[in-house]
Amino acid sequence: MSTDEQGPGPSRRRVLLGGAAAAGAGAVALTGTDALVRSLRSASGEAAEADPVHGGRTHPFHGAHQAGIATPPQANARFIGVDLREEVDADGVRRLLSLLSDDAARLTQGRAALADTEPELALAPAGLTVTLGFGPGLVERVDPDAVPAWLGPLPAFDTDRLEDRWSHGDLLLQVCCDDTLTLSHAARMLLKDVRAFGSVRWSQEGFRRSHGTEPAGTTMRNLMGQVDGTVNPEANDPDFDPLVWCGAEGPGWLRGGTAVVLRRISMDLDGWDRLDRPGREDSVGRRLDNGAPLTGAEEHDEPDLDAVTPLGFPVIAEYAHIRRARSEDPDERIFRRAYNYESVGGGAHGDDAGLLFVCYQRDPDRQFVPIQRRLDQLDLLNEWITHIGSAVFAVPPGCAEGGFVGETLFDR
Amino acid sequence: MSTDEQGPGPSRRRVLLGGAAAAGAGAVALTGTDALVRSLRSASGEAAEADPVHGGRTHPFHGAHQAGIATPPQANARFIGVDLREEVDADGVRRLLSLLSDDAARLTQGRAALADTEPELALAPAGLTVTLGFGPGLVERVDPDAVPAWLGPLPAFDTDRLEDRWSHGDLLLQVCCDDTLTLSHAARMLLKDVRAFGSVRWSQEGFRRSHGTEPAGTTMRNLMGQVDGTVNPEANDPDFDPLVWCGAEGPGWLRGGTAVVLRRISMDLDGWDRLDRPGREDSVGRRLDNGAPLTGAEEHDEPDLDAVTPLGFPVIAEYAHIRRARSEDPDERIFRRAYNYESVGGGAHGDDAGLLFVCYQRDPDRQFVPIQRRLDQLDLLNEWITHIGSAVFAVPPGCAEGGFVGETLFDR
Ligand code: HEM
Ligand code: HEM
Repeated sequence: MSTDEQGPGPSRRRVLLGGAAAAGAGAVALTGTDALVRSLRSASGEAAEADPVHGGRTHPFHGAHQAGIATPPQANARFIGVDLREEVDADGVRRLLSLLSDDAARLTQGRAALADTEPELALAPAGLTVTLGFGPGLVERVDPDAVPAWLGPLPAFDTDRLEDRWSHGDLLLQVCCDDTLTLSHAARMLLKDVRAFGSVRWSQEGFRRSHGTEPAGTTMRNLMGQVDGTVNPEANDPDFDPLVWCGAEGPGWLRGGTAVVLRRISMDLDGWDRLDRPGREDSVGRRLDNGAPLTGAEEHDEPDLDAVTPLGFPVIAEYAHIRRARSEDPDERIFRRAYNYESVGGGAHGDDAGLLFVCYQRDPDRQFVPIQRRLDQLDLLNEWITHIGSAVFAVPPGCAEGGFVGETLFDR
Repeated sequence: MSTDEQGPGPSRRRVLLGGAAAAGAGAVALTGTDALVRSLRSASGEAAEADPVHGGRTHPFHGAHQAGIATPPQANARFIGVDLREEVDADGVRRLLSLLSDDAARLTQGRAALADTEPELALAPAGLTVTLGFGPGLVERVDPDAVPAWLGPLPAFDTDRLEDRWSHGDLLLQVCCDDTLTLSHAARMLLKDVRAFGSVRWSQEGFRRSHGTEPAGTTMRNLMGQVDGTVNPEANDPDFDPLVWCGAEGPGWLRGGTAVVLRRISMDLDGWDRLDRPGREDSVGRRLDNGAPLTGAEEHDEPDLDAVTPLGFPVIAEYAHIRRARSEDPDERIFRRAYNYESVGGGAHGDDAGLLFVCYQRDPDRQFVPIQRRLDQLDLLNEWITHIGSAVFAVPPGCAEGGFVGETLFDR
């Protein structure tokens, strides 16, 4: 009944979980007790195939900005809206944020949470990020003067059919990961931290292509089959920072932070399927096969909004989604990071599928709202999509080691 | 406004989706129209990382047995229970099965379904399998004498708390895949075939580690954190075939088929977490770190059920799950292929998590039932798990090209 005390050590673990081979996306944390490390070796029954594994990949938790925004989108996401208990005051908020930051720092680096009862489920971070966002209810408890003007319910749009059960909240936990089990575990551990301070208001799961199904960098497709995300500022564009990260204009505690808008948009897929292919391409202004604009051949070709058909009609229609979503004002842009959703239940419960439209910007009132106002007024896509949930959160900047996300709200 | 008519061709697609590099698990289908093939190239905006992709992997649909059983478990699964409409007769069943087989044959090979309105979503099969199972209601409509003795509700167990909304059904669609988007699309296309013939009774989603998170062949972990699936016949064991595939003893149409038992087992994870680690290991008889038996050091060490502690107590307790689940009769074994589940909704809807316990055997009455009877009578795990759903389906053998799954039921 001997136990193998000679564990393979961190480097062995790194090889098993692919941190070294695939460190491009972030640094690799080499941690975990010997017993846990050993488990990773012993629990692998069969000879590994040639495929490299990616479970060891990490993104740094600490830094100027929170991770999970400029981070290349992971395959799976969970967005959890929390309502704080009435009795939670500024001090309670501080304790909650410290707990969450501490556990997020551990979990994202492949370490067990502080009171982790299933530590083995934490050992394959697989690109895990945890991003915290604050609703007005949270900020007010710390400092009523610190609430940015744009933090609150968005203006009503005519085509909205919002449901309270998918809207609002005091605190957002955004958990993104390339592994579903790690994500499930991380979300559960974070919710244990929350339990004494609040309750889950809603929880929404999203997915893109699984990691490695397609080459990295392939633009995602949504459930309507469209290539979705082509025209989007990229993290290394010079435009990205001023569009996304809050600067001197707003409350100081948000400098280096951002604002997230989450809209749950339901799709009438059966109705969409009844439309013929040209009609579907027309409604967006792009081809379905490769996402090229109707005036071009390749996905990233610049759309020519002035091109007309031989009969004199615009090639990209007046009601086309891409024409309506585009602004002449270069500051009126957003950074989109959406996920598909599908709620699978018994037939009687009414299945629903669509898009968790997620976008980041420094000021939703000046960026998201004017775009959505144009879409609300005219966008052929509206025939098949319905906004059923809406939430806005202030996303504080990142923190350094030893700090916590949201600390700038207290240091004023 | 030229369009690029020189598509990259199938071999380019194969490279992009990793079929060639990773064909070990099955043959690679090289199909798709030029437009679709082209889309795969054009929709990839960024340079591919070094990671090979696995989206091109396929498992053959045609063969002696249906795929999705001996197939190494994919990362994601959906189990859909269908109720047939009353008016669907033998002829209707035949038409439905032909439609489903035809579309399953296409989709699993990375080709669009016959009436596919989002054909691009079908192009990355990512190991997709579709497996059909028949409830008594379906078999009776074709031939009341063809219903095997074991096909029907399982006997009641004392610890059962079954809910009708997770139980029974006339037809099972089991859809497994390493990509969530492909899975979602395939399930939707198959359900379109079903629509004229029946309705969804329940739909259950399961997950294991995502593809590539851990080395292939690593035993899965469930949400209790346990290594789950260690002692399980393997597809290349000589025992596998006689345990799993139906032979001469039952109805002839099932020869080469099998029986699937699906139990939705809810976990009281909060209660489980209150138990200390030794208590948790004791209740199963195995270690949590690497899944080794309490009498051994490595996962695959043989448990010593006779070993006693210095005080004379059995090391693996009388109530330990692995002692109770084991039989002295070598024919009383099952092939397990379980998935974790977690139903994520608003907090008010009552979240639930657990195990979609799925096992295959030639005769549930002689294999699953005696094991579950022992567990029902005594198994410490019962303190934290509750069976809330139950269904049994007869899984017909595979079919050849041009045939359909279930044809043997008609050829008698
Ligand atoms: C379910 C709802 C939606 C669907 C299916 C959808 C789909 C698409 C598609 C296919 C494109 C073209 C490819 C691309 O550049 O990404 C696109 C572009 C875009 N969409 Fe949406 N979209 C939806 C909702 C929204 C919303 C709510 C907004 C913001 C209010 C938005 C803003 C944009 C922007 C800014 C672009 C880029 C336009 C450009 O070419 O400059 N979309 N969308
Ligand atoms: C949520 C419910 C369950 C959990 C968490 C669970 C967990 C486990 C674990 C951790 C093991 C040890 C590792 C292994 O060999 O896989 C195991 C073994 C096993 N379980 Fe379960 N199990 C559950 C339900 C069931 C049910 C319903 C059955 C069948 C009626 C079953 C049959 C078996 C068998 C046959 C073994 C192998 C025993 C041996 O060592 O020979 N389990 N289970």
